[in-house]
Amino acid sequence: MLSKSHIKLITSLKQKKYRLQHGFFVVEGVKTIKELLQSKLILHALYTTESFNIDAKNEILITEVELKRISFLTTPNKALAIFKIPEAKSIGENGLILALDAVRDPGNLGTIIRLCDWFGVKDLVCSKETVDCFNPKVIQATMGSITRVNISYVDLERFLNETGLPIYGAFMDGETVYDIQLPEKGILVMGNEANGVSKEVEAFINTKVSIPRFGDLQATESLNVATATAILLNEFRRVNF
Amino acid sequence: MLSKSHIKLITSLKQKKYRLQHGFFVVEGVKTIKELLQSKLILHALYTTESFNIDAKNEILITEVELKRISFLTTPNKALAIFKIPEAKSIGENGLILALDAVRDPGNLGTIIRLCDWFGVKDLVCSKETVDCFNPKVIQATMGSITRVNISYVDLERFLNETGLPIYGAFMDGETVYDIQLPEKGILVMGNEANGVSKEVEAFINTKVSIPRFGDLQATESLNVATATAILLNEFRRVNF
Repeated sequence: MLSKSHIKLITSLKQKKYRLQHGFFVVEGVKTIKELLQSKLILHALYTTESFNIDAKNEILITEVELKRISFLTTPNKALAIFKIPEAKSIGENGLILALDAVRDPGNLGTIIRLCDWFGVKDLVCSKETVDCFNPKVIQATMGSITRVNISYVDLERFLNETGLPIYGAFMDGETVYDIQLPEKGILVMGNEANGVSKEVEAFINTKVSIPRFGDLQATESLNVATATAILLNEFRRVNF
Repeated sequence: MLSKSHIKLITSLKQKKYRLQHGFFVVEGVKTIKELLQSKLILHALYTTESFNIDAKNEILITEVELKRISFLTTPNKALAIFKIPEAKSIGENGLILALDAVRDPGNLGTIIRLCDWFGVKDLVCSKETVDCFNPKVIQATMGSITRVNISYVDLERFLNETGLPIYGAFMDGETVYDIQLPEKGILVMGNEANGVSKEVEAFINTKVSIPRFGDLQATESLNVATATAILLNEFRRVNF
């Protein structure tokens, strides 16, 4: 049974303000919820149309109609769970770190979190202007990878100012990434979808890198930030393979 | 002024059946429409809230309210145009060709078309089960790249059977792409989002390639097909840079 207070809480968690206030976020779909249950994340409540056979005090069986009322998806997928937002761990300085300067699109951030997981990037550092990683659309796009990447929201300029690692940034007019001896340890900064890396953050970049274009050089479009991140993380890893 | 027959035609073009029947597709947004106007595509009609200063017989000035009625977008962007679907040119056999085996998501196909444009892949060959490239969501995601890539829908098995080019395919259990001497000319096959390359198509693959995973090897998720395409096209290009 679904009470009014449950519905009110779940609906509020669409908004960052209430996620921060309550310290909870929403996950949907059997597969992703199961993956999160196996992680260190703490379950607050599970609303499901079929039992997961977990501790009954956290599991609330509901009907399809009830699920449709609380789901953020057009096609709800059997279950919705509320988990506690974990505390971010301190940022390691012992590997490759990805930093995002105001990436706004939830789908892009979700894809980028999956890429960090794939390429073994333990730390994802986001500027305060980057979309919240506990946004339901981001969670949906990460497919469980969010449990394996440490995501910190920081004052990016301050972080870059204080690090001892070399700082690389993706630019349209950077050096060809194929020609650069990329290190095992360092920071790669990716910029906003429309404006790229901001002037303020650019001041901290040691090496500007770019992905060569092979098509019609007259065309002005850039690569999408998620696909550019895929290519550049692959470049960092391949040289140390 | 917007007549009922205009509205009926535009609305019908959301569906592939009617796009094929009429031979038209819809493009939205000032920037993309301007880019398509500069290409070889033939404009059928332009519905816009502000004049583009083009031949008046093709331009119909409408109000914001009228645009909202015909737009496929939640936030319409000043103009909507109908273009003629171009005839596919014959497939060249003199470079790198990308082939898609039942890629279903319009956003993925749009991103992949942009990647072909970036990496100078002139021919994109799609199985009949691949989402239609004139689907409005694909067009929206291509950002004009669709004018620079020759897209053919074919019987993929037959095409692969008849080509003289070496055929590479992306698989989870393929050889590490870093270890393979990739050629300048060849075909790269990418599979469906959920099932990868089908058994039928797999029979034609000469070399299975995979992108090494560096993160938690227990995790089972694969890369998204668009990001995997980005990485593999970059790999094909970098060796011949």
